Amino acid sequence: MITVLAGGVGAARFLQGLVQVVAPQEITIIVNTGDDIELHGLHISPDIDIVIYTLAGIVDESKGWGIQGDSFHCLDMLGKYGHATWFMLGDRDFATHIYRTHLLRQGWSLSQVTDSIRRAFNLEVRILPMTNQPVPTLILTDQGILHFQEYLVQRKMQDPVKGVQFKGIEDADPAPGVLEAILEAKGIIICPSNPIISIGPILAVKGVREALRKTQARIAAISPLVGGAPLKGPADRLMRGLGLEVSAYQVAQLYQDFLDIFVLDQIDQNLVTKVESLRTQPEQPLRVIVTDTIMRGLKEKIELARRVMEELLR
Amino acid sequence: MITVLAGGVGAARFLQGLVQVVAPQEITIIVNTGDDIELHGLHISPDIDIVIYTLAGIVDESKGWGIQGDSFHCLDMLGKYGHATWFMLGDRDFATHIYRTHLLRQGWSLSQVTDSIRRAFNLEVRILPMTNQPVPTLILTDQGILHFQEYLVQRKMQDPVKGVQFKGIEDADPAPGVLEAILEAKGIIICPSNPIISIGPILAVKGVREALRKTQARIAAISPLVGGAPLKGPADRLMRGLGLEVSAYQVAQLYQDFLDIFVLDQIDQNLVTKVESLRTQPEQPLRVIVTDTIMRGLKEKIELARRVMEELLR
Repeated sequence: MITVLAGGVGAARFLQGLVQVVAPQEITIIVNTGDDIELHGLHISPDIDIVIYTLAGIVDESKGWGIQGDSFHCLDMLGKYGHATWFMLGDRDFATHIYRTHLLRQGWSLSQVTDSIRRAFNLEVRILPMTNQPVPTLILTDQGILHFQEYLVQRKMQDPVKGVQFKGIEDADPAPGVLEAILEAKGIIICPSNPIISIGPILAVKGVREALRKTQARIAAISPLVGGAPLKGPADRLMRGLGLEVSAYQVAQLYQDFLDIFVLDQIDQNLVTKVESLRTQPEQPLRVIVTDTIMRGLKEKIELARRVMEELLR
Repeated sequence: MITVLAGGVGAARFLQGLVQVVAPQEITIIVNTGDDIELHGLHISPDIDIVIYTLAGIVDESKGWGIQGDSFHCLDMLGKYGHATWFMLGDRDFATHIYRTHLLRQGWSLSQVTDSIRRAFNLEVRILPMTNQPVPTLILTDQGILHFQEYLVQRKMQDPVKGVQFKGIEDADPAPGVLEAILEAKGIIICPSNPIISIGPILAVKGVREALRKTQARIAAISPLVGGAPLKGPADRLMRGLGLEVSAYQVAQLYQDFLDIFVLDQIDQNLVTKVESLRTQPEQPLRVIVTDTIMRGLKEKIELARRVMEELLR
């Protein structure tokens, strides 16, 4: 069994390759829910939906989220009723949130709802929310405390970041199966996702970091930063705001207590020695792989997944 | 002030004429909520929406309900998730139900939500749900007890009707303003709506029938049955199931304890004397008007409204 820690778009793109290299029923994906948000009275799980829509082949590839060819009539009408419409939700996408919210209100857990949505798309991977409790990621800015989606989508990352909080994380239990998936895995992959607000919340869930340190499986992480910048999203602004260096090296450092393999893009070839030096015990070295991580098309996604799996299981 | 008791399609069509004859801000519409239903976890108020969409000029005129040109992507997707899709809800229409449900869950009353939706369309009429409490209309059939929408839409009126129940009606208070609108009206109009399941629930709300008997205002009703059949909907099946004659005369009889004016279609000219005989006190006769009630276009709607208003206020 291969266990994957995933955020949104970057993770979903990597997973498109992985399911071509590893049998889907062998894959467990633990997904960040820190950027879940309630809008229009509906529970939205952006990262879970991005992963599912992508693996189902219906994602809007150009944006990386939402459903391809979706229309926006419902949202337009909600705007007429005075609702904020900065978070783009298509008509087909709304069905997912209506369905999820309905089941949650009937007492289902987010795990159960997620599994039900997965099955509706005949996906054979296992998809676990990191926790079934709400743990909203809050961004501290000089405009006050913003929900991560407000910071990212509504205010378009314009506010200097002063801090990040995962509200309620200390009381959040890992969802059923999360710790087992880490402890019993044959290999673990940290997707090229934002280390602060995609992977960060997963690592902060009670017991997850400890399980990663404890597991017998090798753990590989793919750097989401290439040449000192993210391919997409606000990782640079968040890292800078937290006083961190914006580099692949810094990402490896954030994971250094459990990491076995770190995957750098060719552009970051010069960082190999520096990253390797993060782990000095000869019996458990940190292996650094240099490859093409940019995943322009399916071929590159498969090649990256193949390369990671090769190192993970060798 | 003119107060109108309204169901769905027939009422909405009559109201399109009435707002051309009476200043909208002088009109209070008390709307049936007995056919409200929760689907997909959303609160749907079909009659209120039909009235609002019609007066807002966005109703799908060919069907009489829903929004013209609406798409059905959200519903299709909910079908993929296994939800029943027999109740057609368009993408724009979904916004209304999402908005209503969100406000109801925040503690708003149905009155407040309805007023907010009305204002979003800049309607100047006053629209009151008959009650803010749920009073689902149940149809007793040999298939068991069905919600009215299940009977009408899902099972297409195929089941012989054995009875009708307004569940919880004995505990339902009239919504704020309902009794006052009847007691203080200058004239009252009962729309050409189904007497059993559109007007019936309104009359069954605590105090409404008494207020109609007590009010100083004249009360006019337009027959929804023409030539012994409804123009639309299941009035005939329901009346037959309850052992009632399917005729305009029977409708007048259902209202006879408060009615002053009854409007018959020309086709039912032969019923004039019979309907008049329902009230024998010479000091308070039942006046019967014969006119064209079929409302093919706006001209006919206006003409009918003008004729009713003329009798009501003379």
